[in-house]
Amino acid sequence: MFGIAAVDELVSLLRRLPGIGPRSAQRISFELLVRKRELMPLLAAALLRANGEIRHCQRCNNLADADLCAICRSDRRDHGVLCVVESPADVLAIEATGIYNGDYFVLMGHLSPLDGIGPEALHLERFAERIALADLREVILATNPTVEGEATAHFLGGMMRREGVAVSRIARGVPVGGELEYVDRGTLGRALTGRRALED
Amino acid sequence: MFGIAAVDELVSLLRRLPGIGPRSAQRISFELLVRKRELMPLLAAALLRANGEIRHCQRCNNLADADLCAICRSDRRDHGVLCVVESPADVLAIEATGIYNGDYFVLMGHLSPLDGIGPEALHLERFAERIALADLREVILATNPTVEGEATAHFLGGMMRREGVAVSRIARGVPVGGELEYVDRGTLGRALTGRRALED
Ligand SMILES: [Zn+2]
Ligand SMILES: [Zn+2]
Repeated sequence: MFGIAAVDELVSLLRRLPGIGPRSAQRISFELLVRKRELMPLLAAALLRANGEIRHCQRCNNLADADLCAICRSDRRDHGVLCVVESPADVLAIEATGIYNGDYFVLMGHLSPLDGIGPEALHLERFAERIALADLREVILATNPTVEGEATAHFLGGMMRREGVAVSRIARGVPVGGELEYVDRGTLGRALTGRRALED
Repeated sequence: MFGIAAVDELVSLLRRLPGIGPRSAQRISFELLVRKRELMPLLAAALLRANGEIRHCQRCNNLADADLCAICRSDRRDHGVLCVVESPADVLAIEATGIYNGDYFVLMGHLSPLDGIGPEALHLERFAERIALADLREVILATNPTVEGEATAHFLGGMMRREGVAVSRIARGVPVGGELEYVDRGTLGRALTGRRALED
């Protein structure tokens, strides 16, 4: 509490952002007010603009500034392959690998019954529509390798028991470049049971 | 780069806030857009309100929503004592001790010749006005115990060589509750040279 309403309000709203605690909310507020005044109207305008323009792609559920996102609109992507991820950040991470050229479906979360996030909280009606499209050949389940991500992948797998669509899960194992002694037990166990024959 | 102008603009503005790197700017933006839409107009309004209402107190230079801040206006404070600090956060920290009841002067920075911050970048004309007020008896220099804070305290001390005003510097030594073996060398040396006779 700084004791000035306009400052305290700013601090308490900043605290509701992920990763920003009370001290850092205060620090950001003071920095804006003392040294970065010019940022304040710019940031306000950017928030209002993004809030007004950004919606969910009707096909893949990712953030978009039109009914369809650029990937869903593109005629250079293979719309017969679908990669299911939890968040827009995961799309960025996979795009950055440069080895995937299919479509995505962005769940915007994962199943987490303990937190009250059941199938209805995810956008599964949109997912059902997407996998019903005629030309789909393959679905890659790329939810996180966490308890919730695995449960989500399992649930989605159950939605896709129909002929002609290959369903796979991304490989789990030791991270490339990592050293075995620093890898956690679960990952190492998964890497052993998931071992693959050496290629010639 | 998410590839949507409204999102990328928001991310790049958030990155200019202190303590927010590229990943956390992205995470905040996605969180707002996916799960916290209602925060976006509220935060925009709070930024515009604070930018419009907050100015510097004409007497102590702290952030204020009127010409004079609440401390400078108060008839319960001892306006004959002045504590000079670097930032509004320092005022909060000293107020939280509950043992100080004088005025403040907030420099909003410190001298740092290497970064091009000379006396003219601080609000020293306002400081000169403040120390010229008739009833001032004592000035406590509470700038940080850093190289820049010490240099600033030294410079301000030089501005106050006039009769009748006691000038002091906050004590530097081992932090209360700390263990000697974990205290850095400079602090420990300062605690030794600044030793005080045991009171009965
Ligand atoms: Zn899309
Ligand atoms: Zn004041």
